[in-house]
Amino acid sequence: MAGPDPALAAVRTAVRRLLDDAEAAGHPVGEAIAVACSGGADSLALAAATEHVAHRRGMAVHGLVVDHRLQPGSAEVVECAAARLRAFNFDAVRVLPVTVDGPGGTEAAARRARYAALRAAQPAPDALILLGHTLDDQAETVLLGLGRGSGPRSIAGMRPLDPPWGRPLLDIPRAVTEAACRALGVEPWSDPHNADPRFVRVRLRAEVLPLLEEVLQGGVAEALARTAAQLREDSDALDALADELFARAGAGADLAVAPLESAPAAVRRRTLRRWLAGRGVRDLTDAQLRAVDALVGRWRGQGGVWLAGGLVAGRAHGRLTVNPMESAPGGNPA
Amino acid sequence: MAGPDPALAAVRTAVRRLLDDAEAAGHPVGEAIAVACSGGADSLALAAATEHVAHRRGMAVHGLVVDHRLQPGSAEVVECAAARLRAFNFDAVRVLPVTVDGPGGTEAAARRARYAALRAAQPAPDALILLGHTLDDQAETVLLGLGRGSGPRSIAGMRPLDPPWGRPLLDIPRAVTEAACRALGVEPWSDPHNADPRFVRVRLRAEVLPLLEEVLQGGVAEALARTAAQLREDSDALDALADELFARAGAGADLAVAPLESAPAAVRRRTLRRWLAGRGVRDLTDAQLRAVDALVGRWRGQGGVWLAGGLVAGRAHGRLTVNPMESAPGGNPA
Repeated sequence: MAGPDPALAAVRTAVRRLLDDAEAAGHPVGEAIAVACSGGADSLALAAATEHVAHRRGMAVHGLVVDHRLQPGSAEVVECAAARLRAFNFDAVRVLPVTVDGPGGTEAAARRARYAALRAAQPAPDALILLGHTLDDQAETVLLGLGRGSGPRSIAGMRPLDPPWGRPLLDIPRAVTEAACRALGVEPWSDPHNADPRFVRVRLRAEVLPLLEEVLQGGVAEALARTAAQLREDSDALDALADELFARAGAGADLAVAPLESAPAAVRRRTLRRWLAGRGVRDLTDAQLRAVDALVGRWRGQGGVWLAGGLVAGRAHGRLTVNPMESAPGGNPA
Repeated sequence: MAGPDPALAAVRTAVRRLLDDAEAAGHPVGEAIAVACSGGADSLALAAATEHVAHRRGMAVHGLVVDHRLQPGSAEVVECAAARLRAFNFDAVRVLPVTVDGPGGTEAAARRARYAALRAAQPAPDALILLGHTLDDQAETVLLGLGRGSGPRSIAGMRPLDPPWGRPLLDIPRAVTEAACRALGVEPWSDPHNADPRFVRVRLRAEVLPLLEEVLQGGVAEALARTAAQLREDSDALDALADELFARAGAGADLAVAPLESAPAAVRRRTLRRWLAGRGVRDLTDAQLRAVDALVGRWRGQGGVWLAGGLVAGRAHGRLTVNPMESAPGGNPA
């Protein structure tokens, strides 16, 4: 007796593993689960695999199909995806029309609208909402984050489990979801946005990653995803240490210098970043953070550090403070 | 009165800062300093700036010019670079002929031979040897590391200070060293290897980074270098914590499980990696490391973990062990 198609089996295994990991992480998956489906290969393969796995565990499976209403005919595409999910034996399927507007470009606005609509449609308080992001999406996300250069967090990529969100396919290449759809005999929808070179992500996918794969002789998407996973662990560990240090330094409006002095730089700077955010400091640059850090590590009575919003960070009597400019301690900020 | 050319001033400032940072880090720079110079724009600008800064601090400046002997006429190129350094008023200039051979391709072999020759030519035990790597070299190194995917260390790039090595120009774009050479009125040598597309690094420089800059709309080299700097700090902090944990867990042939259990995953895995390396385990894969880690965090009496070299890691009586296959505890490895 032949088993299921290997691609389909890989997608099912990934869904099983995510549910097991969620239980192990203290997030019981409950009696219902949702899958966000665009009708594309990734989310169709995810939907079919989730139906298989969840029904065998006695869970109800809900399909959520967002209509971004950005293209003529989007309602038909969405109806087609919804019909597929019903044919896959989903227990409930909802179409969620959204309005894409607001700041930051079409990609960002569409993402905001999509996540808000999906979250509002969560079928039960503990139900996970599964998303079809693949290994290739993760690699693109890491490259995007690298280009922003806003630190290890920005290249740590997407989390597999971030309730209510679950992303079981982050280790599965897009080619596998396409093969799974062929095995299922379904024709996935190709979003024309996915070929539109006005989108940065599309150019990363179509131009940069293939060139990188060629120059570095393959395995780049896997390498990026693997690195992202390790960076998430690193950042989680350092964030937890920064939380402890923040508590020891007072966790208040002012921060005691002494506990900060003996901490490793990476932990100290995370603590300072968290404290400054809590004090209402916005748009902190790396140079500003390092200047505030110098008030701890390279203290020679220097003036305060100017920050956005008319705030100044300074050091007085063994404590760090943030104050509006006129009442800053430590003399004239340089 | 006009000051020095801005590009030249930027290179000088970078050299001053490195010397100050070295002193602050407890590495007194002593009475002599060396500059490795190929005759290219980066190391020529570095050499001129170092001569200026070091002589004003009363230090002797030594020039080291490696002849890789890979191209016909290399002796002339090297003599020309040495003559430049003498004209820059260096106190001593040495040409170091090397033989490039051994495993790992020409780039790797040349690097090995170059570093060995430079280290042997260190003019005094505490003298720094300055290298002309720029911001662009750092960005290429990060991309190379990403492609390898061997974790945060591999994308943390080169260190500015790693005695005897000093790399003052890691924040300086290559365009600035070229401008500094123009200001100095010197014509740098263009290494034909730097245009040879058989070298991965050349293709990263000539094809991948320009495309990334275009797609991500600029600032990529700076972003990569900034991220690398933060990753170095993160890795340093986690390595120090792993050292502490290793000591608490026994630091020996066996490792006590109890102290490992409560540690963050990133610290625990670094500790296990260090312990396994010390036990003679080679070529550890990420999957093997995670399986050994599961002996701590997901212990349910499972069998040992097979490792390279006929070794098996196992858990018995609250301790982790590494043994040759036949004497492994914990039953048959699966």
